[in-house]
Amino acid sequence: MFDLNDNPHTRVNILTGERVLVSPHRSKRPWQGQLEDDQQVQRPSHDANCYLCAGNTRANGEQNPAYTHSFVFQNDFSALLPDAAEGSYNEADLLIAEAEKGLCKVISFSPRHDLTLPELSMEEITAVVDLWQSEYASLAANEWINYIQIFENKGSIMGCSNPHPHGQIWAQSSIPLELQKEATQQHAYYEKHGRTLLTDYVNLELKKQERILVETEHFVALVPFWATWPFESMLVSKRAVQDILAFTAEEKADLALIIKTLTTKYDNLFETSFPYSAGMHQAPSDGQQYPYWHWHMHFYPPLLRSATVKKFMVGYELLANPQRDITPELAAQKLRDLSTLHYKNK
Amino acid sequence: MFDLNDNPHTRVNILTGERVLVSPHRSKRPWQGQLEDDQQVQRPSHDANCYLCAGNTRANGEQNPAYTHSFVFQNDFSALLPDAAEGSYNEADLLIAEAEKGLCKVISFSPRHDLTLPELSMEEITAVVDLWQSEYASLAANEWINYIQIFENKGSIMGCSNPHPHGQIWAQSSIPLELQKEATQQHAYYEKHGRTLLTDYVNLELKKQERILVETEHFVALVPFWATWPFESMLVSKRAVQDILAFTAEEKADLALIIKTLTTKYDNLFETSFPYSAGMHQAPSDGQQYPYWHWHMHFYPPLLRSATVKKFMVGYELLANPQRDITPELAAQKLRDLSTLHYKNK
Ligand SMILES: O=P(O)(O)O[C@H]1O[C@H](CO)[C@@H](O)[C@H](O)[C@H]1O
Ligand SMILES: O=P(O)(O)O[C@H]1O[C@H](CO)[C@@H](O)[C@H](O)[C@H]1O
Repeated sequence: MFDLNDNPHTRVNILTGERVLVSPHRSKRPWQGQLEDDQQVQRPSHDANCYLCAGNTRANGEQNPAYTHSFVFQNDFSALLPDAAEGSYNEADLLIAEAEKGLCKVISFSPRHDLTLPELSMEEITAVVDLWQSEYASLAANEWINYIQIFENKGSIMGCSNPHPHGQIWAQSSIPLELQKEATQQHAYYEKHGRTLLTDYVNLELKKQERILVETEHFVALVPFWATWPFESMLVSKRAVQDILAFTAEEKADLALIIKTLTTKYDNLFETSFPYSAGMHQAPSDGQQYPYWHWHMHFYPPLLRSATVKKFMVGYELLANPQRDITPELAAQKLRDLSTLHYKNK
Repeated sequence: MFDLNDNPHTRVNILTGERVLVSPHRSKRPWQGQLEDDQQVQRPSHDANCYLCAGNTRANGEQNPAYTHSFVFQNDFSALLPDAAEGSYNEADLLIAEAEKGLCKVISFSPRHDLTLPELSMEEITAVVDLWQSEYASLAANEWINYIQIFENKGSIMGCSNPHPHGQIWAQSSIPLELQKEATQQHAYYEKHGRTLLTDYVNLELKKQERILVETEHFVALVPFWATWPFESMLVSKRAVQDILAFTAEEKADLALIIKTLTTKYDNLFETSFPYSAGMHQAPSDGQQYPYWHWHMHFYPPLLRSATVKKFMVGYELLANPQRDITPELAAQKLRDLSTLHYKNK
């Protein structure tokens, strides 16, 4: 009989409409491949060479203020530019290009060079959430900005070029690919059921309790049924809101709490500073209403079985289809069972 | 004025219908992030602990033959299984899964533990192409196998778990995601123009000569206009064929030649064993005809600016949209200018 815990199968990602190949039996595969550096390095609380530390001077000659919580500035090496020339290019429908306008910001989460999100206090994480919200508001006010991506690359293994705790915001004129997919799926569901896709999905998961990691007053953290990365998770707001602007002070503090709890569990899993890319998915900021959009935040962590062995999304995954070994249910169980007290404080 | 060499823009991948964000100005970004190991390690020509070397015993107790060219066997830790239970699962259209049948094979390219594709002789690479073709034929003969993915992960940075030169074949019952996208795009183009998409695309590129890397009698190697990885390339057959079965002996030798030429240029770029994931995209092997399908092979190499600095597809890329810094035209020019004589033989 077909068994999700045992037989190779595909699962549908209801947010994108795409599938992931799950190979539950493959976790016994021996590993002789590349080992990552353990992210365990003792850093000073202030580093004179870090462009994010308070008081230091950045590449463009500007000096960082003596900030005490979080601090935001325009990326000195932005991938998107606000004043980029407009235009488009099309040759025989074979070579097709279009100008893209945007801007990139960097948010330092704390003046402390040696800490990461789970190690910050509730007050400090709440300050980060507040800054995300106010940055979102001021960026969305620009008529030409139609989408705002708030995200964090954590750990050098995730391409993070500076260990100082920080995240990024890329704001731009067009709607990126992943958001288009999620819009299509959420829209279709809302048209059919009159409720957001994630409202019904989260309620089903809360009933089943198989993939839930943490539940707070206003948020749920879970391993999605279609999770692709080994310990992937998703935060969803219980209230169906389109973007971070809608969150009250109480919800923002609660978001800080669930982020702290989830990232602490992550660090505890392999007793290392757990690398990931994380980011919010929100409705376009083009001034329209998107009642079908439901705010959520994805965490994509690469580690597979220890602080040094990661999952590679390579040959088959790039050319054919994303694939995972450990089941989402097993990953959820491992994360759920972990303490919410950070291992460094034990 | 809008300039593809200078302004941030998006380009359409005509094979998938998806876009890539190009940031030409961003190549000056300083790099303080993770450095990869240089793949430069002297290996013995035979390693007693390698499960791919001739005469050695594998995990399942089987002994490899004393092979002289290439050698194929079923993966001892396959992600797909031929005898997997069939069935499907659907809960409220929110949890959706389906059993997947398949099998995974490993192809050793040579008994020599210390060499890689570009270092093999034309005769040896042709033997690999012959084996790809005969394996494809015998797998496609299975009624339940509907798609066959031939690929190679090269280098530990690309998740390759053993440095012995080898590739993989995953054959399965359903059509994976990337192939579905390419089918849709190729089908639509063929319906409209009566020629395959890649016939017209390659002819346009041959006329422009801006992104062409190598042209042989029967194949073209180029950097696609929509390339995502820094030095991504694509091999296309001049003849519009659906799969490797159609290649004549002459075409197979010519495919070996263009693979040797391209991978030699890759190694010469940073004078290192150049890592990549590469693989063929072919029509479904379900017995139907797919006149719109055009055989091609993608090379996705991660290195960005040296043997130790790679491009990370992380935060923004995973959550929003693939992004690249150096333009495809610049990458093509660098690769085109390189010698076809391997740097180790200079
Ligand atoms: O089969 P291998 O070489 O053990 O594994 C490698 O290739 C597979 C197919 O792309 C991936 O799923 C693995 O993550 C990767 O490490
Ligand atoms: O902006 P950073 O930290 O220099 O760069 C990092 O994040 C970016 C956004 O995900 C990626 O494009 C880069 O490849 C990665 O190294």
